[in-house]
Amino acid sequence: MADRNLTTVEALAVLQKNSDQLFLVVTGLFVFFMQAGFGFREAGSVRSKNTTNILIRTMLNVFISGIAYWSIGYAFAYGTPSNFFLGHSNFFLSLPVVDVTHARWFFQFTLAATCVTIVSGALSERVEFAACLVYAMLISGFLYPVVSHWAWAPTGWLRTGAGDKGLVFPNFSRPLFQDFAGSGVVHMTGGAIALAGAIMVGRRIGRFEGRRAVRIPEHNVPLVSLGTFMIFLGLLAFNVGAQGTISRSGSGEAVSVITVNTIISASIGVCVCSSPGLVAMLMKRVGILGKPNWTYLSAANGALTGMVSVAAGCDMVYTWGALVIGTVAGLTYCVWSRLLQALRIDDPVDTIAVHLGGGFWGLVAAPILSRNGIIQEVSTMNLKVRFDRFLPTIKRVFTKEKKQKS
Amino acid sequence: MADRNLTTVEALAVLQKNSDQLFLVVTGLFVFFMQAGFGFREAGSVRSKNTTNILIRTMLNVFISGIAYWSIGYAFAYGTPSNFFLGHSNFFLSLPVVDVTHARWFFQFTLAATCVTIVSGALSERVEFAACLVYAMLISGFLYPVVSHWAWAPTGWLRTGAGDKGLVFPNFSRPLFQDFAGSGVVHMTGGAIALAGAIMVGRRIGRFEGRRAVRIPEHNVPLVSLGTFMIFLGLLAFNVGAQGTISRSGSGEAVSVITVNTIISASIGVCVCSSPGLVAMLMKRVGILGKPNWTYLSAANGALTGMVSVAAGCDMVYTWGALVIGTVAGLTYCVWSRLLQALRIDDPVDTIAVHLGGGFWGLVAAPILSRNGIIQEVSTMNLKVRFDRFLPTIKRVFTKEKKQKS
Amino acid sequence: MADRNLTTVEALAVLQKNSDQLFLVVTGLFVFFMQAGFGFREAGSVRSKNTTNILIRTMLNVFISGIAYWSIGYAFAYGTPSNFFLGHSNFFLSLPVVDVTHARWFFQFTLAATCVTIVSGALSERVEFAACLVYAMLISGFLYPVVSHWAWAPTGWLRTGAGDKGLVFPNFSRPLFQDFAGSGVVHMTGGAIALAGAIMVGRRIGRFEGRRAVRIPEHNVPLVSLGTFMIFLGLLAFNVGAQGTISRSGSGEAVSVITVNTIISASIGVCVCSSPGLVAMLMKRVGILGKPNWTYLSAANGALTGMVSVAAGCDMVYTWGALVIGTVAGLTYCVWSRLLQALRIDDPVDTIAVHLGGGFWGLVAAPILSRNGIIQEVSTMNLKVRFDRFLPTIKRVFTKEKKQKS
Repeated sequence: MADRNLTTVEALAVLQKNSDQLFLVVTGLFVFFMQAGFGFREAGSVRSKNTTNILIRTMLNVFISGIAYWSIGYAFAYGTPSNFFLGHSNFFLSLPVVDVTHARWFFQFTLAATCVTIVSGALSERVEFAACLVYAMLISGFLYPVVSHWAWAPTGWLRTGAGDKGLVFPNFSRPLFQDFAGSGVVHMTGGAIALAGAIMVGRRIGRFEGRRAVRIPEHNVPLVSLGTFMIFLGLLAFNVGAQGTISRSGSGEAVSVITVNTIISASIGVCVCSSPGLVAMLMKRVGILGKPNWTYLSAANGALTGMVSVAAGCDMVYTWGALVIGTVAGLTYCVWSRLLQALRIDDPVDTIAVHLGGGFWGLVAAPILSRNGIIQEVSTMNLKVRFDRFLPTIKRVFTKEKKQKS
Repeated sequence: MADRNLTTVEALAVLQKNSDQLFLVVTGLFVFFMQAGFGFREAGSVRSKNTTNILIRTMLNVFISGIAYWSIGYAFAYGTPSNFFLGHSNFFLSLPVVDVTHARWFFQFTLAATCVTIVSGALSERVEFAACLVYAMLISGFLYPVVSHWAWAPTGWLRTGAGDKGLVFPNFSRPLFQDFAGSGVVHMTGGAIALAGAIMVGRRIGRFEGRRAVRIPEHNVPLVSLGTFMIFLGLLAFNVGAQGTISRSGSGEAVSVITVNTIISASIGVCVCSSPGLVAMLMKRVGILGKPNWTYLSAANGALTGMVSVAAGCDMVYTWGALVIGTVAGLTYCVWSRLLQALRIDDPVDTIAVHLGGGFWGLVAAPILSRNGIIQEVSTMNLKVRFDRFLPTIKRVFTKEKKQKS
Repeated sequence: MADRNLTTVEALAVLQKNSDQLFLVVTGLFVFFMQAGFGFREAGSVRSKNTTNILIRTMLNVFISGIAYWSIGYAFAYGTPSNFFLGHSNFFLSLPVVDVTHARWFFQFTLAATCVTIVSGALSERVEFAACLVYAMLISGFLYPVVSHWAWAPTGWLRTGAGDKGLVFPNFSRPLFQDFAGSGVVHMTGGAIALAGAIMVGRRIGRFEGRRAVRIPEHNVPLVSLGTFMIFLGLLAFNVGAQGTISRSGSGEAVSVITVNTIISASIGVCVCSSPGLVAMLMKRVGILGKPNWTYLSAANGALTGMVSVAAGCDMVYTWGALVIGTVAGLTYCVWSRLLQALRIDDPVDTIAVHLGGGFWGLVAAPILSRNGIIQEVSTMNLKVRFDRFLPTIKRVFTKEKKQKS
């Protein structure tokens, strides 16, 4: 089926480029489908009367994000020329098609829509319809693009700053900021906006009695379950797609390792979050008074937090690292969830705990647990020598100060 | 993992061919899944009593289409030898496997099933079970294959006719018929059969009171929403898969551009269809008496119509072209929907408006808005020169006529 | 996008390897999603009170399988060194990443989870939560890995034994055991464990009145339908993914043929299982007293059994072979389903009939119907010659015996 007039080298280059674009498009399709997953999880978790409203809003959010990310968002994120803060060209994708621009637009658009939809989850049942549309435009047109520019565009300050390897620890060869698949860029950004929004819109009536949280039960567990599984699928594809290319040496291995790490982190996350429920169930069974308090959402959120947390380093950690990340992610989720309840912040599907909490832990964990990360460096570098250098420096500082005083 | 005994050139050719086949299979999987989406949208939109019936029928339609398209359909569509009207060989896929035949069968089978399932939507709640099976066989075994032969097989009259570039406008280098991803072949065909069927089977009792349409509310919005999102996913993959190959020079860019255009067209389509609802909502809010009349279906149908309309030219229009197509598609849908109601034709999920209306507009728009399309030609060609040529021709014609009269 | 410092040959090898890994990852994503499908089918089929329980269990099963298959399962299945019975290295995926190991882990993990989830279906509504988790660990950590080692690892006894081509029929060049996509390894294994389990846990109260089976109606047909379609999608991807590689000569054709065969087998399977219902419906219509007894589940199970049965030989049978396999699979399902009812074994979603019955038939059919299979051999080999050789041998044997007697 190849074009007859291409040399082998050219034909291979074409196939490489096409494979990269198809890779982004196919993974983007899965992430696109995930938007519906967020909608179903939210719609099933709240009171039945708001279902239709939420589902229409979810759909509109996706497509409004499409318009906003096309018209201005992509330009702010990846337009060149650009500065450390944002890009400012290729508005409306008006420049001629170059290589993977359009494929990357599609994949990045699905991430922008994800960011919007994360926020929606936390504000569920309490926001005017029109307001939703406004923040969808704002997030996908400006906030998410700018943050993604910082971390992922060649000129973004988080990326160039990450290149200053010796900034904090002069001996480390690894950068201290790494965000492979958006633990920070997508999840923390979404989670932080959600937190701000949830504080602003206040609590649902009846959600808290005095200081005590009252559980508003989900009205449709199958819908929640469907949504959750669609998110699992989407986040897997999200982490995979963040690799961005499939033609380079090592891309295949990276993609494979990413799936393994994501599954392992999610698996241990769900186990950690389910263990209290399981223990309670067993205790009740052997006669000890247990209070079995385990819902579909809390178990599922453990897995989601695991996937969110591992995203930042999923290409660079060993599988045992993913296990550590997932374990702590499960605990992180439980702590954040209880903390938000104690602060009387109403978050119907624990979006903030999952995305802000999980994303933050992911950003912290990635540089520590990566291959050649901090643990690796600390365990291999000659600590004594450094200490030798460190003490004299301190002495000199103090000596200088004394000299100046005298 | 490569075979050791292939030269580099051969191994590359193998990889190219395999990639093309995998491309069709993977996009076909998404389109296959879309069938269930149509089923859910329909089942959720009608009265609860008919749900099971519709879901069984949807499933049977898919598999009956499998048998019919395998036994005779593919032969009518793509069998060679063939004439301008239909093909007539390779019944039962009995010829030896050559290149992409089987992959193309799978992808085309999913389109045939789509055509069947489009018709089902319009006849919902009013057709005998057995009749459904009969028309499923008829459409996927004969009607759709023949139409797809016209437009997509090398000998089809619409395709060869499209080669007669100067047929209508002698100066245009672009053909006047183009249907990249089935706006006409799949959607209009399905929509037209649906229209005929809907007229034949008549109206549901209680759907119209005198001339006034009575809305029969959907019984399960989450199901409608799930179905709709599965259709979004499927139509995206449908338009992408229509590219047919991923190994050629430019396929990757085409695939990327297609996703962008499809998203943009759907996005603006949903905005157009939602704006009356939004305006009504705002008017009500500021105190003016509004009649908020917006349902999940009508908003979603705007996006679907956008996707359907852009299909014909999604590889050839600029993004601004997709925006124009989507905008008009949204309006088109509203007009068709009201028109059918005024004609007292009962179409439970507005299938005819979406697929016939949207498909027709797509066929009209594609040759106008494509790169090198009519607008492009008109705006770049030297009109004066043409006019110079045009006037003498007319003069001569009239002079001749006069001469003949005299 | 290619690395600049690779030669064309190296760059091609990289692309081949990456494509293979991406192939496994993408098909694995679909199979991963299928787990939810099994959950929904089961949850919708049983009584409403058990829905949440089943959905939580489904999710936990997937992730517990993740931990178990990672820690010990993959080592038992594919670790080298290995013996004919199991492998015993690469526990916790601790060995350095080599080629497709991680991608294969992901794909195989989804199959292990499938095996677990098959068992769950048969034990629905009658098993303690904790017991489920234990058998999930056992199956995905040990039982499935060992069986898959037998058939798919290079040293497994079923695979090496299959190499002894002349074992039973000395003239056949085809092995007698072939299991391309797990008719035996996944489906029969799961079905057999499910049968043992269903006998152990007994019947639901009210399922049988004396010898008569009482149908416990599904409480949510849309959920069943959604689950079923997700399983269709998953099994298609499962059979495709079993090809394991997309870069070799013929992989593309194999993948294409597999999709066609799977669709055809499922199509005829559903037709066979639906025909009694259809006939009853028609009889009732023409006035003869019919008892229309057709449910979504029974029709869908026909398609599933077709997909399960064709798996073993889907890369090697002609399409007419798939038609034969699917037809018999449909009948097989009906027989097994009635047999289990007669034996008063309670299997809520007919899992055993589908997976054990269908899988067994698939294993039988594959070596018979494959290209170069038993039918092919028998029909082409010179029977006369063989007979000529055969008779003298027998004569000699008898003569010898007589001689020895004398």
